Amino acid sequence: MRKKSKYNVAVVGATGAVGQQMIHLLEKRNFPIDRLKLLASSRSKGKVVPFKGHDVVIEEATPESFDDIDFALFSAGGKTSKYLAPYVAQSGAIVIDNSNAFRMDPNVPLVVPEVNPEEIFKHQGIIANPNCSTIQMVMALKPLYDHFGIERIIVSTYQAVSGAGNQAIQELKQQSKQVLNGEEVSKAILPVGSLPIKKQIAFNAIPQIDVFEENGFTLEEMKMVRETKKIFGDSSIKVTATCVRIPVVYGHSESVYVELKQSYDLKQVIELLKSASGVVVIDDPLQQEYPLAIDAAGKLEVFVGRIRRDLDHPNALNMWVVSDNLLKGAAWNAVQIAEEIIKNAK
Amino acid sequence: MRKKSKYNVAVVGATGAVGQQMIHLLEKRNFPIDRLKLLASSRSKGKVVPFKGHDVVIEEATPESFDDIDFALFSAGGKTSKYLAPYVAQSGAIVIDNSNAFRMDPNVPLVVPEVNPEEIFKHQGIIANPNCSTIQMVMALKPLYDHFGIERIIVSTYQAVSGAGNQAIQELKQQSKQVLNGEEVSKAILPVGSLPIKKQIAFNAIPQIDVFEENGFTLEEMKMVRETKKIFGDSSIKVTATCVRIPVVYGHSESVYVELKQSYDLKQVIELLKSASGVVVIDDPLQQEYPLAIDAAGKLEVFVGRIRRDLDHPNALNMWVVSDNLLKGAAWNAVQIAEEIIKNAK
Repeated sequence: MRKKSKYNVAVVGATGAVGQQMIHLLEKRNFPIDRLKLLASSRSKGKVVPFKGHDVVIEEATPESFDDIDFALFSAGGKTSKYLAPYVAQSGAIVIDNSNAFRMDPNVPLVVPEVNPEEIFKHQGIIANPNCSTIQMVMALKPLYDHFGIERIIVSTYQAVSGAGNQAIQELKQQSKQVLNGEEVSKAILPVGSLPIKKQIAFNAIPQIDVFEENGFTLEEMKMVRETKKIFGDSSIKVTATCVRIPVVYGHSESVYVELKQSYDLKQVIELLKSASGVVVIDDPLQQEYPLAIDAAGKLEVFVGRIRRDLDHPNALNMWVVSDNLLKGAAWNAVQIAEEIIKNAK
Repeated sequence: MRKKSKYNVAVVGATGAVGQQMIHLLEKRNFPIDRLKLLASSRSKGKVVPFKGHDVVIEEATPESFDDIDFALFSAGGKTSKYLAPYVAQSGAIVIDNSNAFRMDPNVPLVVPEVNPEEIFKHQGIIANPNCSTIQMVMALKPLYDHFGIERIIVSTYQAVSGAGNQAIQELKQQSKQVLNGEEVSKAILPVGSLPIKKQIAFNAIPQIDVFEENGFTLEEMKMVRETKKIFGDSSIKVTATCVRIPVVYGHSESVYVELKQSYDLKQVIELLKSASGVVVIDDPLQQEYPLAIDAAGKLEVFVGRIRRDLDHPNALNMWVVSDNLLKGAAWNAVQIAEEIIKNAK
C-alpha cells in the first residue's frame, strides 16, 4: 500500500456487535481516517452513528460502495463477504474480513499480528481475521510454539453469546429475566441462527456453536483445528476442540491442554508468556487470581492463568485463556492488521 | 445388615441442597422407612419438613442422635462428617457420607453402585459418596473401561452453582438480577465459601472450585483425579481435570477426552453406553440433539452425547456428559447405595 497521511475506511456490517467495536476502536486508536464509510444491509440504511463528534449515515453495502476506499473491514457474515469482497479487492482496497468465507483459502492470509505478521504482506487484496476462539488460543500458544514446539492441543471452550451477535446478547438477557421471573422462556436465535431448532442459553451450557460436520465436530470446533494449523503454518500440530456456549455476554474462556515437543521448565513458560506481546499473565492461585471473562471484557489483551504442569505427561501443561471475543477475537485483530499495513506502507 | 421390613434413617444436613434432595428421594422411592430423623446444625433446630404427609421436626445433630438408626445419610460438610460419622458407625448404623472427609480413606469404600457395587460390602461402618463431578464421569467411562481399558482422561467441567449449596443458588439469582438491572453486584459465597476473596458468578465463568493445592490444581480437580483411580481400583488411569463454575443452577456438564487402551468401533461405543445402567445416550447432531444441563435437572440418569472419534489419536474419543449434580451426583447415589444394602440384607 502506498503511504498516505490519511486513509478512506469502510466498515461493512456497521450495526453488528463486531462492526460497532470496529468503529469504536478506529475512533479510540485515532486511526488516520480521511473518510469513514459505514455500510450495512438495506435494513439499517439511513441510521446514524456518531464518530469523532460527527454523524455518519449508514449506507447500503453494494459492489459500488468501495470506490476510493483503502481499507474495508468486513463483519457482516460469510455470504456478504463472499459476494462483496472480490469487488472490493479488485477496486484496489484491502479487505480485512472477519467472516469464515476466506479463512481457509490458500490465497488468503489468515493473520494474528502477534503470531504471523509476515503473512499480511502476501495478500492479494483479502486478509482473513481468524475465528475468535482461535485467535486467543494461538496468542497464548505462540511463545510455547516458538520455544518448545507443539505436539498436541486439546481445548474446551466457554464462549460468550456476543460471538453470535447483538440478537444473541438480547436473547440471553431476555431469557435470564424470564427464568428469574418464572415465565416461559422464548427462544429465537441460539444455538445457530440459521438452524430451525433453538435451545435455551440462560442458566444452561450448549455444546453446539455453528453447524455440525460429518465427523461429529461442529464447524466452530473445526475452525479451531484448521485455523491453528494454518496460522502456525504447521499441519503437524494436533488439535481437538469442544466448543460450548455459556451464559456469558462478553469474553471467551478456554481450558487448554498443550503437549510440547520437549520438556520444559514451568517458570520459563510463565516468563515467556509474560513477555509475549498482547498477552497478560494473571496467575496467583493463593491470592485466587486468574483470568475471568467479566474482567477481560472491554480489554484488548489475551489473559492467561491457571498455568500448571500436567499430572501425567511430562511435556504437557494446562492453562486458562480468556479474552474479549469482540475485541482481540474480532474487531481489534482486524484494526491491528490495518495498522500493521499502514506502519509498513511506503 | 440384618434384613428388616423397615429401617430407621437419619439425614444429616437436612436443610441443605443435597439433604433436601435426599429427603425427596426417600419419599419418592418409597424407601422402607420406619422412623425418619432429620438432623442439622443448631440453627435449623425446630424447623419442620413435610414427609409423606407428616411433619418431621429437625433436631440438632449430636453424637447421641443416632441410637437405633440403621442408615445415616450425611451431607453437612466434611467437618460434621469427620466429627460425627465415627460415633454413628460405632453405634452400628451405616454412614453414607456425601462429604470429602473419608473418600480417600483406604478403609472406606468409595462407591458408585453401577460402577463398583462390590465395594459396598467391604465397609466398616462408613461408605463414601464420590464427588458429583466424578460420579457422572465414571458412569460414562465404566462401559469403556470394561471393554477397552482406559489409558487417559482429560476433562473440563461446566459446573452448576447448586454444587456449592443453597446460598450459592441464591447468589447466582441475586447477582443475575443485579446485572440485568444495572445495579452493583454483591458477592458473599462463590467461588469458595471458606475463602475471603469472592468472585461474581453471574454472566461469568470461574476456573476455581474448592481450594488450590500446591501443584496448581484445585481440590475439586484433584478429587476427580484421585476418586476416579480409587473407584476403578486402577491407579494407572491418567486423569487431568480443569473444573469451572458457570452460571447454571442445576446440572454439571463435562467435556471428556478419553484415550482407550485399544482401537475401537464408534458404533460399538455408542451401543455400550446405551446399554449401560443409569446412562442415557442423547446424540443426534443433525437433529441438534445432545445433553443439556436444563434438561438433566431433576432426572436421575447420566446423559451422554457428542460422542465422536478424536481427530488425532486413533484410540481416543470425545464426549459431553451431563447429569443433575444434586441427584446422581449426590443424593441419588447415596440413596442407591442404601437401597443396594437393603437388597442384599439377609
